[in-house]
Amino acid sequence: MLIRPATRDDAAAIWSIIGPTIRAGETYTLDRDLSEGDALAYWFSADKEVFVAADVDGVVLGTYYLRANQAGRGAHVCNAGYMTGAAAMGRGVARAMGLHSVDHAKARGFRAMQFNFVVSTNERAVALWQSLGFDIVGCLPGAFDHPAEGFVDALVMYRAL
Amino acid sequence: MLIRPATRDDAAAIWSIIGPTIRAGETYTLDRDLSEGDALAYWFSADKEVFVAADVDGVVLGTYYLRANQAGRGAHVCNAGYMTGAAAMGRGVARAMGLHSVDHAKARGFRAMQFNFVVSTNERAVALWQSLGFDIVGCLPGAFDHPAEGFVDALVMYRAL
Repeated sequence: MLIRPATRDDAAAIWSIIGPTIRAGETYTLDRDLSEGDALAYWFSADKEVFVAADVDGVVLGTYYLRANQAGRGAHVCNAGYMTGAAAMGRGVARAMGLHSVDHAKARGFRAMQFNFVVSTNERAVALWQSLGFDIVGCLPGAFDHPAEGFVDALVMYRAL
Repeated sequence: MLIRPATRDDAAAIWSIIGPTIRAGETYTLDRDLSEGDALAYWFSADKEVFVAADVDGVVLGTYYLRANQAGRGAHVCNAGYMTGAAAMGRGVARAMGLHSVDHAKARGFRAMQFNFVVSTNERAVALWQSLGFDIVGCLPGAFDHPAEGFVDALVMYRAL
């Protein structure tokens, strides 16, 4: 697996990954009906660095972005969002992107990384981030309206770099 | 004191309040050098409803905004930001705006209100929000680089509506 900066040429591959995740609406607080153009504009917004994870044949398996979580005197803490294609689940893509993002964030000089909104029912993600050294530092009661489970908690997770 | 929706005619009065707070850089993670135009564009961004608190003579004493804190299936939780003019400190302006925002958010159908980043050294604000029913639901270690005190914690505060 190779993790490299994304280019605009990756847009279609990235949409094939983030589109189904957005439509499912179970893990991100994005409008489920977001158009391809608006979704890609969000993913590639000017404040973000975007990466893709590709297999040996160049097939994109996952994508993540990294950005400062706040401006001004909070800009030493970064934030990231990750999505893995359904076909690539269980192959360690998210873990590899997580490790890559931590290394890249350190190289960029960030002092910590924060996830603002990890849906508590996304147990695979919570466990993955904990295994990468993130602590649950906050719990937002009922902050996510899960399509199947109704109002569930969202977690704030954080680690020093 | 009257709390009413802000108009573009309030821009100069609002800048006279938010400008010094932004320049001080002790409570918000905004770029301290933000221009008047950029600061007002931030305060009046399309996702926000903006209010002002004015005295009986119409002098603007404080301002706040209300918005959804997340999109999609997190849009039932709102967020707000409040600033009081230095000359009006200690007159209950922030408390009045806080109460107004809670009532207005309920009327808008929001189910909860979340403050994402209350600087822990801003003890007056923390105590005020607690007195209005907000709980500290998260602590972001060292997430704010205070101009005088260095890296201090930021708090996540939350209340159901």
